[in-house]
Amino acid sequence: MKILVIGASGTVGSAVVAALTERHEVVRAGREHGGHRVDITRDDSVEAMFKAVGQVDAIVSTTGSLFFGPLTSMRPADFNVGLQDKLLGQVRVALLGQHVLCDGGSITLTTGIVAEEPIRQGVNATAVNASLEGFVRAAAIELPRGLRINAVSPTMLTESKDVYGPFFPGFESVPAARVAQAYVRSVEGPQTGRIYRIWQ
Amino acid sequence: MKILVIGASGTVGSAVVAALTERHEVVRAGREHGGHRVDITRDDSVEAMFKAVGQVDAIVSTTGSLFFGPLTSMRPADFNVGLQDKLLGQVRVALLGQHVLCDGGSITLTTGIVAEEPIRQGVNATAVNASLEGFVRAAAIELPRGLRINAVSPTMLTESKDVYGPFFPGFESVPAARVAQAYVRSVEGPQTGRIYRIWQ
Repeated sequence: MKILVIGASGTVGSAVVAALTERHEVVRAGREHGGHRVDITRDDSVEAMFKAVGQVDAIVSTTGSLFFGPLTSMRPADFNVGLQDKLLGQVRVALLGQHVLCDGGSITLTTGIVAEEPIRQGVNATAVNASLEGFVRAAAIELPRGLRINAVSPTMLTESKDVYGPFFPGFESVPAARVAQAYVRSVEGPQTGRIYRIWQ
Repeated sequence: MKILVIGASGTVGSAVVAALTERHEVVRAGREHGGHRVDITRDDSVEAMFKAVGQVDAIVSTTGSLFFGPLTSMRPADFNVGLQDKLLGQVRVALLGQHVLCDGGSITLTTGIVAEEPIRQGVNATAVNASLEGFVRAAAIELPRGLRINAVSPTMLTESKDVYGPFFPGFESVPAARVAQAYVRSVEGPQTGRIYRIWQ
């Protein structure tokens, strides 16, 4: 398969690339790294990437920013950060990307445990990740040509524990290599509309 | 209690006003009707409304627009319609409204069955409603001063069956007066972080 990975240099993205490279042709994209530079918050940037890459069998997105901060001082513009970046950015990849997929191809997006397990200062993260999971559930029943869509919801990564550990008291972490297997399952497996929770 | 209802002239909103008026002081707001005119997509408009209304015991929102259309021709800008209106609009009401609530006061937002039961052309509705439910779950654990937040998720209204029936094949409808009781439960009851599903 020819597989486009957006966010390929991140902790999850590079583990996904490592897990897929042996058996597939992997095309790497990212904001600051990779063969293709892309800003997922802009239609023209995402369309230019898809035009340059051409038809693919699978699109994987492991990217997107969120706003973290206390609810009591949060402003609507703060909340819109995650809506425009991780949420609409990944939805943009799916909406524009459906047209470059081969029949039976797949889209795999990235959500996170905070969708279901809220943490302090994480209101935007919960809302954005819950929305992405809703998008996947709904898009799966409308995609034509046997196209599939899934999302991977990791808990805190072992590699990020030093930085994010204090925000996830008592949460077990998982290594990125284990999370990467869920992307393999989405890309190579038959399922659609699934949220792969890597914390159960 | 002094209760602000935003979207007070809509099918759900007017049923909520009818259910609350007998025992409470209800202040009505809306885009085109009500004592206070408000555009929930703008900070200045929402802030002006809260300044004019003053301190309240409860804020109820029964408003917000979504984008409906086929996934295969949907553009990112289409998807952003619901993000900016029903989602960020209601989140704006909650974020700015928390500061005008009395201790122990409540916020009640409106989501919908499509959050959990996707329909054709409803990708934006599922994503927006799922996000609102995530926001409520997360905000409930951070609100100070005993403030509470819940959402009501109605199925198709009996009053809207002629218009929306074809999009909800086999779905049972509920009268707006029954949906309104869930808002009463949220406003007068003790719970927080709850999604009241009026279809089970």
